[in-house]
Amino acid sequence: MPYKYITEVRGYELDSFGHVNNAVYLNYNEQARWNILKESGFLEAFLKSGMFLVVVETNIRYMRELKMFDSIEVITSLKHEAPYLIFYQEIFNKTTNVKASKAKTKTLLINSERVTQDLPPELISIIK
Amino acid sequence: MPYKYITEVRGYELDSFGHVNNAVYLNYNEQARWNILKESGFLEAFLKSGMFLVVVETNIRYMRELKMFDSIEVITSLKHEAPYLIFYQEIFNKTTNVKASKAKTKTLLINSERVTQDLPPELISIIK
Amino acid sequence: MPYKYITEVRGYELDSFGHVNNAVYLNYNEQARWNILKESGFLEAFLKSGMFLVVVETNIRYMRELKMFDSIEVITSLKHEAPYLIFYQEIFNKTTNVKASKAKTKTLLINSERVTQDLPPELISIIK
Amino acid sequence: MPYKYITEVRGYELDSFGHVNNAVYLNYNEQARWNILKESGFLEAFLKSGMFLVVVETNIRYMRELKMFDSIEVITSLKHEAPYLIFYQEIFNKTTNVKASKAKTKTLLINSERVTQDLPPELISIIK
Repeated sequence: MPYKYITEVRGYELDSFGHVNNAVYLNYNEQARWNILKESGFLEAFLKSGMFLVVVETNIRYMRELKMFDSIEVITSLKHEAPYLIFYQEIFNKTTNVKASKAKTKTLLINSERVTQDLPPELISIIK
Repeated sequence: MPYKYITEVRGYELDSFGHVNNAVYLNYNEQARWNILKESGFLEAFLKSGMFLVVVETNIRYMRELKMFDSIEVITSLKHEAPYLIFYQEIFNKTTNVKASKAKTKTLLINSERVTQDLPPELISIIK
Repeated sequence: MPYKYITEVRGYELDSFGHVNNAVYLNYNEQARWNILKESGFLEAFLKSGMFLVVVETNIRYMRELKMFDSIEVITSLKHEAPYLIFYQEIFNKTTNVKASKAKTKTLLINSERVTQDLPPELISIIK
Repeated sequence: MPYKYITEVRGYELDSFGHVNNAVYLNYNEQARWNILKESGFLEAFLKSGMFLVVVETNIRYMRELKMFDSIEVITSLKHEAPYLIFYQEIFNKTTNVKASKAKTKTLLINSERVTQDLPPELISIIK
């Protein structure tokens, strides 16, 4: 079942073309990932132990512009391809009813010494 | 011949892991593209006419961390695959002497009405 | 009656000290101002006519740190001291129940030629 | 003798009005402060010990717009008013030859437990 994160485009996120800058789409996707970690109870454990998910690759297709006050929903599905945890993320613009972007982000769990860790079994179990 | 843009990692570009946030790599790459437009003389014409290069897809591999005050060089090659102008961009960390990222960014030239334009022949001619 | 804008601290807004970077407080305050313009019906008119509120001075006292997922409320009061429209803004951390910052931001309404405009009487009337 | 930090406005730092967003001026000033710490040899010691300068108040007057590729110089003077270290910072636009902003930023040195520290005598000695 995909995770959903809802937010709204802020005025300072627009660039000189009056639309959301391409790098900001990655910010939205990142925040959606933080939310999944929080909701699934892993965030606190990760922060305490110094472990974190590092992004090793992102592929993003920009399909539509986003404008100030657009209400957006980041829809995320996860997949485990050891050692990677992969996030498939679509940004859906609820104001205009169109898909704004589609991204695949490959992450690795590493510890505070930057050594790759196996994903905790409990984290794998939340991935369908 | 590839274009080179040199800059330095700023302190506020680090995130809570003490390294440059993944979205900021896209900022560096974008600024390198602006530099190419400026140096090749297209920036002023584009800004006047309301035309601009819109990013339709980005693929980026993150290879190494970047830290505060790291001196970085964005090395860019261009390719024309009509209607796309494609930027191949590597960020090289001159402080640590390692490649930090490798990206491919597909762009389209559009006008102020968001209609795709042919690339000006003079712009194509600068692409080897 | 003060205006209220509620949002949540995002992970990428933290800097290397693990708290929200000082410049981001200004982003939150700016977004609260955009919300007031939108809710009071001035945003569309301003965007159409090319008029906008330009910040001429900000004074901000940082009282407490903000951390990831903190729920924050920006409480804004307005004052008209011709030609200025002044925003008094406090960021209240609802997660920790403390005030995080207190700011005064002086703005001017200017048109697309950067000429100062009188505030529309309807805008003044919403200021108590 | 004031410290000088030179940089250039980047395209993605512009907001929808085509000029540098007001919060970004704080980024420039922050980076100038990091440079002073680095050049004066305190940065490494601070990072190792977990000490850092936390901003407790900023007052900034925005005098002129900054545009893409403007070459800017942040001119910083320091003052010690125990327990505060105060930075007076002006952003000078070398492209247009006008002053763009004038700011006063009050900081405190704190340790990793967020306890205020006396400034090291060597740091005070660099302040004239």
